[in-house]
Amino acid sequence: MEKVFITGAAGFIGSNLVDRLLAGGKSVVGWDNFCTGQKKFLSGALKNPGFKLVEGDNLDLPALTRAMAGCDTVFHLAANADVRFGLEHPARDLQQNTVATFNVLEAMRANGIRRIAFSSTGSVYGETQIIPTPEDAPFPVQTSLYAASKVGCEGMISSYCEGFQFEGYIFRFVSILGERYTHGHVFDFYKQLLEHPGRLKVLGDGSQRKSYLYVQDCVTAMLHALDLGTAKTAKHGVTIYNLGAENYVLVNDSIRFICGALGLQPELEYSGGNKGWVGDNPFIFLDTQKIRATGWKTSLTIEQGIVRTLQWLQQNRWIYETRQ
Amino acid sequence: MEKVFITGAAGFIGSNLVDRLLAGGKSVVGWDNFCTGQKKFLSGALKNPGFKLVEGDNLDLPALTRAMAGCDTVFHLAANADVRFGLEHPARDLQQNTVATFNVLEAMRANGIRRIAFSSTGSVYGETQIIPTPEDAPFPVQTSLYAASKVGCEGMISSYCEGFQFEGYIFRFVSILGERYTHGHVFDFYKQLLEHPGRLKVLGDGSQRKSYLYVQDCVTAMLHALDLGTAKTAKHGVTIYNLGAENYVLVNDSIRFICGALGLQPELEYSGGNKGWVGDNPFIFLDTQKIRATGWKTSLTIEQGIVRTLQWLQQNRWIYETRQ
Repeated sequence: MEKVFITGAAGFIGSNLVDRLLAGGKSVVGWDNFCTGQKKFLSGALKNPGFKLVEGDNLDLPALTRAMAGCDTVFHLAANADVRFGLEHPARDLQQNTVATFNVLEAMRANGIRRIAFSSTGSVYGETQIIPTPEDAPFPVQTSLYAASKVGCEGMISSYCEGFQFEGYIFRFVSILGERYTHGHVFDFYKQLLEHPGRLKVLGDGSQRKSYLYVQDCVTAMLHALDLGTAKTAKHGVTIYNLGAENYVLVNDSIRFICGALGLQPELEYSGGNKGWVGDNPFIFLDTQKIRATGWKTSLTIEQGIVRTLQWLQQNRWIYETRQ
Repeated sequence: MEKVFITGAAGFIGSNLVDRLLAGGKSVVGWDNFCTGQKKFLSGALKNPGFKLVEGDNLDLPALTRAMAGCDTVFHLAANADVRFGLEHPARDLQQNTVATFNVLEAMRANGIRRIAFSSTGSVYGETQIIPTPEDAPFPVQTSLYAASKVGCEGMISSYCEGFQFEGYIFRFVSILGERYTHGHVFDFYKQLLEHPGRLKVLGDGSQRKSYLYVQDCVTAMLHALDLGTAKTAKHGVTIYNLGAENYVLVNDSIRFICGALGLQPELEYSGGNKGWVGDNPFIFLDTQKIRATGWKTSLTIEQGIVRTLQWLQQNRWIYETRQ
């Protein structure tokens, strides 16, 4: 039986993937340093005999190598995913993304594991002028340390595919939302509205255009791509897919969906400017024809995804106690 | 007077840059760990009161920060430049290129220095299908750890330009040759022919097409680009230039130039295949219209550059004693 290793297994996407793999009869080893991961997200998985949880950090290469023994495939999802605070902690993206990914690759090599799926980001396209942005858009200029670190990771993964005959799947995500979502604009907006229902502070001018993908659709896409095994026959053993919805919404649309679902009409206080923060990309919309051509499609619209996320947050307010 | 900090100051390109800057009346602090750098290359510079040499490693951030104090511009040239052996020492490119570059950026930030010139590589284009390759070629797939690490560096530099208002100049070099050249095919071929003039082993089938640039032309291009100050007005404070010759030659042409200059007719033993090594790019030829549009041009043809390099090696055989 296939045995899958997942870094960031207690995270938002990781824990959803764990559950899906277990439901599909796979054996799963979950790895997490519980820096942002939540044990609660694995409460179902932990009851499954096919699941093993190992607590550890990607920067601890010997422990990572030991934990990975006997696995066939690695989903490397652990990352510093907070795009906005790169400038406050410049070393964090380098260490937790680039160096950590190097360690994952080395642990795989030491164990003779060659199949890796990696969560990259649509942010790697910087402020591209080509929208929707295809995988082979013009070589972008990076504008955030987060994306810069992910580009470094992508490069190492594809080099391992070339040099060590790895089979790599790189997924460039738009923002993902849904059950177990623990950071992002829906999280922040709902938090604010819990504290003061009559007032909502918005970064930027609300005109930022963003695309979001429902986490279950994201997981489906990754599993589907690996099932197809496209990377096995790709020129360099690596296949890159954008993952995102078919359209985008304005931040103001999203506010409308959220406030509508909550029955609130807060006063909106915009920080102004067309960007939410330095390095923010005011328009993210990926061309997802490549993954769609494989037969994959989304099950929820962006609006449905946002409302589903909000409902989950309403039912799981404990998350606000653990994530400050 | 402008004070320039150069990492890799005792290296091939670095030491040539030191001499040019000193000749132009600049004050220069040279930084090198002498891992591959040669003190002999700085023998002229060390007689100049405008030059200060500090021995240190980019991985020692406190020392690097201290050494950089009072400088206005940083040329970050230190790197693990041996593209071919990435797979034997996978950590080396990550540490000596990506992590080292992060330290250079942090040392600059600590000192309030914002102008950086960086030696990247045409290898970042991987096996692009667009030849000659412009700076905005389709987002490439990396095929070597060396190039992957340089892509990571480029991303961090442009993120510092965006986030910390740095002024960055990224130069993607073809292979550079000329005086003080210490590794590459001319070095290897001449070494072989010194040992056995009748026989020459060639990696690949000799059909690999490569472009080379004379080191003085490379230095001129960098200084010219910084004088223009294009990055000051660029959208993200970063300007990227390809640096290369107007044409390319086959490895077989290069062998002909070298053997012709030496008056030798060795038997050629090809290892076969269209690549010299795993991750080698069999056709590197950069589109250099962008830098040419600024008025810069080469002073030597590729053939002249190769012969000049060979002459320097003939006059400096000591280099073969120090570089095994």
